[in-house]
Amino acid sequence: MAATGAAAATAAAAAPQWRTLIERSLKKNRSLAYSRYVQLATVRPDGRPACRTVVFRGFLDGADALTFVTDRRSEKVGQSAANPAAEVAWYLPVTREQYRVTGALRVVAAGDGDAALAAARRKAWTNMSDAGRSQFVWPHPGLPRIAADEAAFLQPAPDSAGDPVADFCLVVLNVEAVDYINLKQNRRIVFSQQQEGDAAAAAAAAGAQAAAAAASAGGGSGGDGSEGEGEVPRDPPLTLAGWTATEVNP
Amino acid sequence: MAATGAAAATAAAAAPQWRTLIERSLKKNRSLAYSRYVQLATVRPDGRPACRTVVFRGFLDGADALTFVTDRRSEKVGQSAANPAAEVAWYLPVTREQYRVTGALRVVAAGDGDAALAAARRKAWTNMSDAGRSQFVWPHPGLPRIAADEAAFLQPAPDSAGDPVADFCLVVLNVEAVDYINLKQNRRIVFSQQQEGDAAAAAAAAGAQAAAAAASAGGGSGGDGSEGEGEVPRDPPLTLAGWTATEVNP
Repeated sequence: MAATGAAAATAAAAAPQWRTLIERSLKKNRSLAYSRYVQLATVRPDGRPACRTVVFRGFLDGADALTFVTDRRSEKVGQSAANPAAEVAWYLPVTREQYRVTGALRVVAAGDGDAALAAARRKAWTNMSDAGRSQFVWPHPGLPRIAADEAAFLQPAPDSAGDPVADFCLVVLNVEAVDYINLKQNRRIVFSQQQEGDAAAAAAAAGAQAAAAAASAGGGSGGDGSEGEGEVPRDPPLTLAGWTATEVNP
Repeated sequence: MAATGAAAATAAAAAPQWRTLIERSLKKNRSLAYSRYVQLATVRPDGRPACRTVVFRGFLDGADALTFVTDRRSEKVGQSAANPAAEVAWYLPVTREQYRVTGALRVVAAGDGDAALAAARRKAWTNMSDAGRSQFVWPHPGLPRIAADEAAFLQPAPDSAGDPVADFCLVVLNVEAVDYINLKQNRRIVFSQQQEGDAAAAAAAAGAQAAAAAASAGGGSGGDGSEGEGEVPRDPPLTLAGWTATEVNP
């Protein structure tokens, strides 16, 4: 699992290709506000899966990690403490693309000792809408709704300029793999972090990189998926930022 | 975990309220073809979660179970064999509603001995589009894409009137609980299967039923969420089809 610091170091080089693809997809889908909604899966303490919709809040400054926000009282906080493994499914309707982003969650609560993450939490708070900030002072999510609590849903939103309220948490997904599928073109690319010295994988990935570059050029020629196959250069370059890309069958 | 037979028996009575809500939501979101896309979370054999987008194919005939289709070669088939627990997240953009549907998966492959499920699998096959049927004769999903396989992506679709191809599977989600949230109205209702003799839960649920009925009446008065609270009748009726509904804090 990539630590945030390590991710920040590699991000100083070029962004990994999966991030470039996501940013391009978000731009093409920006007419739909809910294209920033993704489904986040975690595992409950009893071993069963949990899945809910969350809002993508952007990439972490200086890193290729995804950020979300949550309430410290929510079930996903306890779930990720016991098992940080997570997978996000992100469906983008305009371009008919899906990203599956696999990684480990890091919940940044009030008092977190990592100064960069504490700053990111504060920034996320400032960027929230009034309606978004209000939810963090509502009664405990998931508990039975009772009449005595109703006034609490009507209180004014906490100030965006002040400290985040105690229950406001930033959620960071440190990315380990990305599975990208383009349903218009019937293309699928799996991005994974390269193992050091894995020259065979690098060679295999080089041809896929060319295919992926063709896919990311946009427009699409109808998706027969035959471009770039089998053209492995003799001296393959290392992939960007330690990632390999492999085109696989959809 | 409810067996399909038991679900069919209770469905002979009125549909559970969560199903009525889903059907109403689908109608209101029918302008978006992708409102039938949901995210399905399972657990991988190594204990990490998996999450991907699948298409809702309707309720199982005679039951309140959700159906999907999949390729027997897909990872979710192996995952659900080892751990059938699943959760679907369903976000509906027009109405800003989310359903989280928790339950157990049953994969119906070729040669399944359950005659009703085998018939449902055949019906699902017939209802697929040509493009949908084609995918089940494509090269093994997830394996590296190679030039020698490209012609296989171009072969004609298998006949809808014939037997489903061997790799075509129906996936049934037998529902155990539903967590419904309406983001426009800031209302949330949890539906769970009633334990026999759980009179206290039935009494608590009765007030929530009234609130849920107000929510399901549609239109919405602005979502202050105060209707029906605290009005527990002295002699609460049993909830429909063995389900309880509890309004909880969003």
